[in-house]
Amino acid sequence: LKANFCSDNVAPIAAEILSAIVEANADDAVSYGEDAITLRLRNVASEIFEKEVAIFPVVSGTAANGLALSQIAAPFSGIYCHEFAHIVTDECGAPELFTAGAKLLPLRSPDGILKPSQVSDAVALAQDMGVHHVPPAAISITQATEWGTVYSLDQVNDLAELARRHGLRIHMDGARFANALVHLGCTPAQATWKSGVDVLCLGATKNGAMGAEAVVFFDPVLARDFEFRRKRAGQLLSKMRFVSAQLLAYLTHDLWLSLATHSNAMATLMAEGLAAIAGARLLHKVQANEVFVALPDSTVAHLQTQGFGFYRWPVSAVAPLTAIRLMTSFDTTVQEVRDFLQSAGEANHVQRV
Amino acid sequence: LKANFCSDNVAPIAAEILSAIVEANADDAVSYGEDAITLRLRNVASEIFEKEVAIFPVVSGTAANGLALSQIAAPFSGIYCHEFAHIVTDECGAPELFTAGAKLLPLRSPDGILKPSQVSDAVALAQDMGVHHVPPAAISITQATEWGTVYSLDQVNDLAELARRHGLRIHMDGARFANALVHLGCTPAQATWKSGVDVLCLGATKNGAMGAEAVVFFDPVLARDFEFRRKRAGQLLSKMRFVSAQLLAYLTHDLWLSLATHSNAMATLMAEGLAAIAGARLLHKVQANEVFVALPDSTVAHLQTQGFGFYRWPVSAVAPLTAIRLMTSFDTTVQEVRDFLQSAGEANHVQRV
Amino acid sequence: LKANFCSDNVAPIAAEILSAIVEANADDAVSYGEDAITLRLRNVASEIFEKEVAIFPVVSGTAANGLALSQIAAPFSGIYCHEFAHIVTDECGAPELFTAGAKLLPLRSPDGILKPSQVSDAVALAQDMGVHHVPPAAISITQATEWGTVYSLDQVNDLAELARRHGLRIHMDGARFANALVHLGCTPAQATWKSGVDVLCLGATKNGAMGAEAVVFFDPVLARDFEFRRKRAGQLLSKMRFVSAQLLAYLTHDLWLSLATHSNAMATLMAEGLAAIAGARLLHKVQANEVFVALPDSTVAHLQTQGFGFYRWPVSAVAPLTAIRLMTSFDTTVQEVRDFLQSAGEANHVQRV
Amino acid sequence: LKANFCSDNVAPIAAEILSAIVEANADDAVSYGEDAITLRLRNVASEIFEKEVAIFPVVSGTAANGLALSQIAAPFSGIYCHEFAHIVTDECGAPELFTAGAKLLPLRSPDGILKPSQVSDAVALAQDMGVHHVPPAAISITQATEWGTVYSLDQVNDLAELARRHGLRIHMDGARFANALVHLGCTPAQATWKSGVDVLCLGATKNGAMGAEAVVFFDPVLARDFEFRRKRAGQLLSKMRFVSAQLLAYLTHDLWLSLATHSNAMATLMAEGLAAIAGARLLHKVQANEVFVALPDSTVAHLQTQGFGFYRWPVSAVAPLTAIRLMTSFDTTVQEVRDFLQSAGEANHVQRV
Repeated sequence: LKANFCSDNVAPIAAEILSAIVEANADDAVSYGEDAITLRLRNVASEIFEKEVAIFPVVSGTAANGLALSQIAAPFSGIYCHEFAHIVTDECGAPELFTAGAKLLPLRSPDGILKPSQVSDAVALAQDMGVHHVPPAAISITQATEWGTVYSLDQVNDLAELARRHGLRIHMDGARFANALVHLGCTPAQATWKSGVDVLCLGATKNGAMGAEAVVFFDPVLARDFEFRRKRAGQLLSKMRFVSAQLLAYLTHDLWLSLATHSNAMATLMAEGLAAIAGARLLHKVQANEVFVALPDSTVAHLQTQGFGFYRWPVSAVAPLTAIRLMTSFDTTVQEVRDFLQSAGEANHVQRV
Repeated sequence: LKANFCSDNVAPIAAEILSAIVEANADDAVSYGEDAITLRLRNVASEIFEKEVAIFPVVSGTAANGLALSQIAAPFSGIYCHEFAHIVTDECGAPELFTAGAKLLPLRSPDGILKPSQVSDAVALAQDMGVHHVPPAAISITQATEWGTVYSLDQVNDLAELARRHGLRIHMDGARFANALVHLGCTPAQATWKSGVDVLCLGATKNGAMGAEAVVFFDPVLARDFEFRRKRAGQLLSKMRFVSAQLLAYLTHDLWLSLATHSNAMATLMAEGLAAIAGARLLHKVQANEVFVALPDSTVAHLQTQGFGFYRWPVSAVAPLTAIRLMTSFDTTVQEVRDFLQSAGEANHVQRV
Repeated sequence: LKANFCSDNVAPIAAEILSAIVEANADDAVSYGEDAITLRLRNVASEIFEKEVAIFPVVSGTAANGLALSQIAAPFSGIYCHEFAHIVTDECGAPELFTAGAKLLPLRSPDGILKPSQVSDAVALAQDMGVHHVPPAAISITQATEWGTVYSLDQVNDLAELARRHGLRIHMDGARFANALVHLGCTPAQATWKSGVDVLCLGATKNGAMGAEAVVFFDPVLARDFEFRRKRAGQLLSKMRFVSAQLLAYLTHDLWLSLATHSNAMATLMAEGLAAIAGARLLHKVQANEVFVALPDSTVAHLQTQGFGFYRWPVSAVAPLTAIRLMTSFDTTVQEVRDFLQSAGEANHVQRV
Repeated sequence: LKANFCSDNVAPIAAEILSAIVEANADDAVSYGEDAITLRLRNVASEIFEKEVAIFPVVSGTAANGLALSQIAAPFSGIYCHEFAHIVTDECGAPELFTAGAKLLPLRSPDGILKPSQVSDAVALAQDMGVHHVPPAAISITQATEWGTVYSLDQVNDLAELARRHGLRIHMDGARFANALVHLGCTPAQATWKSGVDVLCLGATKNGAMGAEAVVFFDPVLARDFEFRRKRAGQLLSKMRFVSAQLLAYLTHDLWLSLATHSNAMATLMAEGLAAIAGARLLHKVQANEVFVALPDSTVAHLQTQGFGFYRWPVSAVAPLTAIRLMTSFDTTVQEVRDFLQSAGEANHVQRV
């Protein structure tokens, strides 16, 4: 059986997190998040972010994003985001469900990173159109981005300053926040509220949890009534302690960082190996755990035949090459990466001979 | 520490179900429900219900109900239900979220069980009002009901026949379906589609799972496009195998039935004990795992002081007595029930002397 | 042809209002409500209500109510109202559409008038249920009520005080506000914001307009962003001047009051005539332009045969009598009422002989 | 006072249509669209479209579009449309409101006309993404387009064939349908259902009505339950006869066609005049009543100073010229166009000298 690089969510549960679930199963506990574990999670999160935060565990990133956006964007408003943001292309309309129809206003950029000037232009246009255009309410950024790149602190800051000038909020889709954090080498606080982020969707599932995400508001006032939204969305689990236990283990003893460090390292190893293959072309900087590479179609076909798991990616600009996405996770091994690179190299060699 | 009868969801995870989670953690697996465990769940569910069913695992009963209703009731339509149904009073507007605003049309009945005649009258009124009134689309019944009573097969059947005559669908909120099933002593098929139920929300969390529910359609045609609704609601977990594993264990070797049998037995024991206490008044038949009883307020106060967990229930008609709800679960012990009864008896005795 | 007492909306356009439409048709005008007539309407409304108000013309009462409620009640919140309120029974789910699923929480009262104590009890229950229950956001009252009765200023005030204590807003469905105002004999300011009303849906259509209603906020701050909601609902007409012209004519030279005075007088005449008929039973006080009366079914049948227009009303408590609703309007004539009374009297006489 | 070319909705009501309103005001009439005029409208519409159609009068184009789309696109689905379609940029999120969150999937094309190949590519991508992407439900086209161009019958047909292959519906935003029809020189039937259109939003307001639009379904089966949607949206006016009367007059004696013929002719006159001015550049074919032209900024400024009404249009590609939009209507006069051209010519001359 060959390695599966389709996504980081094909991975199992990290051992420490599974243990935490088992340990949480000792006895009866108050339901709906009034339990001791959830309470401890709140304290730990506030310590980690160096600030009293309002943290709401949920079980899916799609729900986390939709709910977070519903808190900062009225049903009649607009949300700027990248045209390939997960909330645009991969959540089957969830933001529209949870926000009751707020409009995602897609912007373009080659590397997945929004620039203040393009948001600024879009705001000017919206203002010009007055009541006919949805009034913009928020900017949603993905950290790490859908292209595996990472916003620098300055880039986040610049967007946040622009946002403040126009009364917009900053939402960060942090499905792979730990991967970005490890790349940035800064504190969680620096990566978020100190750079102007209002609400973070903190992913854990893709980085070792079973099914646990959290919506984190850095200003508790902004979280007002959010518990009703979560409940209404079916995301307030009765046995919430088991979700909180996952997040608590994740954030304890830097587990999230060590898992992400490994995952990122595997992506880097993969990228370096691919770069050494003649004819291969890396499409984006590898700053987290995703590698986008263009290869001859015969090489791609060979790798698939060999049984490696990955997706062909719709990037028409690389023709006649074929783009693929490779994603590493906390349980990817060096051997798996080497096997893949060897197969890729062989295929390429054969083709060229 | 005294026993907690507040709800069946204060209980931990049943051992067999926790084991199933641990076992499912072996290796990488395809995400988003395309894994082998989820596939097996589908087959097992179809066997148990003696019919090819479309089963969709989700993680909360609130989401299950809302999503099921959204599939059978248009946003502009109405859904008949009991005025105290969980979907009316305890889901913070989730049905309205998932159905995009369908209207719950509450009906009254003392025992939680809807009667065909009252639905029939309501349909006549709606028809009379024409375009001004939401056209009724469905009847939602709770099995077991919010009062711990259970619809007989005939009662379900009669509603279903009425429903068919008017083009309505039958939704069954089966948060405590296993408890009802055990009481009825019939097959799952008899309790559902053979009695005219179109879609069942099959609860497992309250009966031993960590967080696992399923929406079950008995006619796969009725489930058309439902996977998009589930995804959009943030209920298609990426690591779905761990939800499916819970449900699979739940439905295997009759685990669900043995857990519910115990839970019901504990409620019956409790009810019998209370009935023997002078001055206590049972408010409803005890047919599942809930006991509603009216006691002197001093007795209630004594029990609370003793540390027992339960809720006072807003039933004004029992004055000067005070109504409370006691809920048993798969892990309630005979000793816990006896301790409670003893305390209740003592309090009562003291008061009367 | 006999008179049509089915509703006040079977009436045509009052002459003054039609003239205003014709006059507004002089030339080109800025669209979407930036025209001079709409501007003048704003000033006139502020004069009439003795306060700077934010007034938004729309074209239907259903939209007015839904939009007003959406401004004061979050999608996850609840709105107290009478169980027979127009927003509950006659708007086909419009409040749920415009509020994105807020829940109408119906309360009962025999005369259509909500009492503070019942709202107070309901709030206590909601608070007790915490996150599981929609947090209440508003109280919606209908003035005049669906039973043709009118809240006294004290009754409105008492509700408003309660509302303030609990952070709730007061919405007044004033589809027949002019009829109520005439009955109360007070100023528009006294009937609304001076009694604690936050937002009024001011009806004109049922009292002589072609299709013109207005949402009036008494605190412009509360109207923030409301123009986006109206636009999004398709209620910002491009040729808005023609809607504003109706409202302007309506509010000018006390036209609204004279039309309502006549309409109310016709209802009173009808009620007095009916009261004199043996066996007839008036079901509610007649304080506006609606009469609910119970008559022998043979009388009702006779009146229908004669060609009079009215609705049988579902009031089962009057059996064996049959309840009907008679509604007068600005163009109802004394002769029409007398004809009706004569037919009713004859029928009754025949029956009794 | 100079002519206002800002929009065709700055125009007043056409004389014939105003007369129809006045005539409809004769007496009482059944409300909510059960009146004789509305009935006649249905018959006339069916004659004009050579087919039994289901026609629903409403009062705004924004509502018409949103409601029509809600009938053919589920809340979790997607609708292909031009990135500058009115439903995308000018309706403040109304489609999202009425469809309960369906996602508009914007496509690009320089002339406002969608090509089958781009829809086809988008469908392929959606299918590839499976449950994560909203399933496409419809294609929305604007006729005439936002750029004043007109789809040929073949172009509509080709899209419709593609739509049928993929189970998509065709929605036509016909806010300026009459203008397109006149340009095409075909029958209303050919321009719509014979070319594969499923539902047409037939505009009248921009072409002489006071406030009247209609949603026309060419297969009455597709219109099932639509009356509930309209009612719920606050678009079923109680005195509907006055909306229907406008539409009836509009469609009678070819009024709609003569009004549009004049309007189009004025745009053509304007375009020809502008083409003769050195330095002016027409940006799009003028096939309806809109002219997009790029002029030196000094010319634009001069025209504004002179008092002509028009909008600068955000078309960055024409720099250093400035793009403006000129819209003619049924009441634009030849003299008004000539005055404008003369001013434009003068300004240009001065500048060049």
